Amino acid sequence: MTAPHSTRVDSLRELAGRADLDAVVATTDASIAYLTGFWGLQLERLFAAVVRTDGGGALVAPTLDRDGVAAAPTPLPPRFWELTTDGMPELVDALGGARRIGVEEHHLSFARAGALTAAGAELVPAGDLVMSLRARKDETEVARIRAACALVEEVLERMFAELRPGDVEAEVNARVRYWLSQRGATDAHPLILFGAHAGNPHGEPSDRTLAPGDVVCADVSAQLEGYWGDLTRCGTVGPAGEWARAAWAVVRDAYDAAVAATRAGAEARAVDAAQRAIVEAAVEVGQCLHGAGHAIGVEIHEPPFLVPASATPLAEGMVFTIEPGIYRSDAGGIRLEDDVLVGADGPVLLSGLPLELREIPA
Amino acid sequence: MTAPHSTRVDSLRELAGRADLDAVVATTDASIAYLTGFWGLQLERLFAAVVRTDGGGALVAPTLDRDGVAAAPTPLPPRFWELTTDGMPELVDALGGARRIGVEEHHLSFARAGALTAAGAELVPAGDLVMSLRARKDETEVARIRAACALVEEVLERMFAELRPGDVEAEVNARVRYWLSQRGATDAHPLILFGAHAGNPHGEPSDRTLAPGDVVCADVSAQLEGYWGDLTRCGTVGPAGEWARAAWAVVRDAYDAAVAATRAGAEARAVDAAQRAIVEAAVEVGQCLHGAGHAIGVEIHEPPFLVPASATPLAEGMVFTIEPGIYRSDAGGIRLEDDVLVGADGPVLLSGLPLELREIPA
Repeated sequence: MTAPHSTRVDSLRELAGRADLDAVVATTDASIAYLTGFWGLQLERLFAAVVRTDGGGALVAPTLDRDGVAAAPTPLPPRFWELTTDGMPELVDALGGARRIGVEEHHLSFARAGALTAAGAELVPAGDLVMSLRARKDETEVARIRAACALVEEVLERMFAELRPGDVEAEVNARVRYWLSQRGATDAHPLILFGAHAGNPHGEPSDRTLAPGDVVCADVSAQLEGYWGDLTRCGTVGPAGEWARAAWAVVRDAYDAAVAATRAGAEARAVDAAQRAIVEAAVEVGQCLHGAGHAIGVEIHEPPFLVPASATPLAEGMVFTIEPGIYRSDAGGIRLEDDVLVGADGPVLLSGLPLELREIPA
Repeated sequence: MTAPHSTRVDSLRELAGRADLDAVVATTDASIAYLTGFWGLQLERLFAAVVRTDGGGALVAPTLDRDGVAAAPTPLPPRFWELTTDGMPELVDALGGARRIGVEEHHLSFARAGALTAAGAELVPAGDLVMSLRARKDETEVARIRAACALVEEVLERMFAELRPGDVEAEVNARVRYWLSQRGATDAHPLILFGAHAGNPHGEPSDRTLAPGDVVCADVSAQLEGYWGDLTRCGTVGPAGEWARAAWAVVRDAYDAAVAATRAGAEARAVDAAQRAIVEAAVEVGQCLHGAGHAIGVEIHEPPFLVPASATPLAEGMVFTIEPGIYRSDAGGIRLEDDVLVGADGPVLLSGLPLELREIPA
């Protein structure tokens, strides 16, 4: 376990040096876990992985988490802070006079940035630098994403097998989450929506019951041993109606095009464009309401995002959700989602569940 | 539903004016929900409640969330942003030239602060200003916290009734979360630990099985209609041993002292000191590893925190968890937790579950 974390810290140190930084301070739970193997739950408390180019560094954490830190394979020595401070003096101390400091600019708060600046630091956005490491998954990481996908597949199969008219949307989501937890998921985000309710890709599960003719859009993600898997499959209660079949066919084409475009060297927006051209051409079926997907790893949503605004080039080892969908507020939504590795020879699916529309007995 | 949110926005506008601000930008999911009734899930996307002292304002959100925003009782008009931006241009536009801007300094990111500053804003920490409103709960809010506590109590009763030796820690936590979701909880954090494992107040549920002689420390929280309830009760498998009885007696005394100290005008640290004096005096029983509690409302942990460093005065309408505990790494942990309203005539318990150690059949 220790080796990959050491390698990651060393790589970050090297990148920091090349960027003329004296240190990098990673503050997201996910980056800290990636660098140290320690999974904290920050809430309002300060945690930080400090990597100095002079070879020093520390995992700054509250004393309360001493056992979790001790059990982690962190290559950075712990630096604990007591309840009598907010952790900032200990962070400044761990920086050992480093002046030019790379920070995760989308996470470090305005208040903590102010405290670091007041202590003499010059802060430099370095989120991309940390993410350039996190984005390219090693073999262990790919294996963990595969395992998380396998867990989600098992639970999706069970859900479709047991789903019946009369089932309550919120209850089905709770049950799926329970099955995932039972099987070791440390976190999970099921989003299973019925009928017209599925027409909003970010809808909330409600007390709506499943009825004949409904589509079911089942987006299920789970975190297993630190890594996420995220899949979506759809079904209908009784034989699929005309709209559901048409929507599924559009999304299936968009899915194929987006997966095929998920190649090293392609720009992120090219993957989005591949699905968007197909979904947007089907205006009579529904709307295109989101991008093609996002990177996935220690976080369920990570950059790069496969959206029109992103020119980020895809690189070998990146893993993305590919999840085109089409939505009509009076009929529902159909989405297909798999997790795809950018391989040396093209896209590699990390999940293997059939894509077809499931038919739930009416 | 609309009235309380309008009142909150008006109060914030008035506070902002008194603080010589041109606007306040609230960016936490919790503050946005408090001000607008809209519960978003931000992930990497920008959401903001903009309240201008000139009477203007907006709820800035991605287009993807249009249905959720439309269903919310927000007194602020929506300002949607499309996938082609990151939402910052729309936020700057919603500010309508406001220059001196209060921000939630513990949440606004370094990157977004930089973008606002580059657009000509002078940023002022205003988290306390927003929290000064959120901290004092109105009647509706107190009723919702009571309802969340009642839900947690029901599930704790069922858990203690069904718990048996051989039960797996992780499975029990998953089951309790499922019961909470089934009953309408939109989020939940069960932390139920067995035996020596409970000696770490932030331990992770594992595959450990419940055994005769174990203590059980069951900390269960749930969010219902936007508001959290958070309780802890303990038990033993078979009759309580000497350590468990001694630990419970210490914590019970500390609990009584801390609840009694939860009064308007007292400093936050005085509540902590009341429990700490008793727990720290019992060194032969175990360690005092955390503060007396924290405020609770739309977030499970909110300021003020009942810790040694806080001189914040308690005010009528605040609601706190009171949760003293004592820990010994080879024996376990005992903690008692209730949610307490600072009332006009002293502390008011919002939960009513008996405090005693439960005996689980061995």
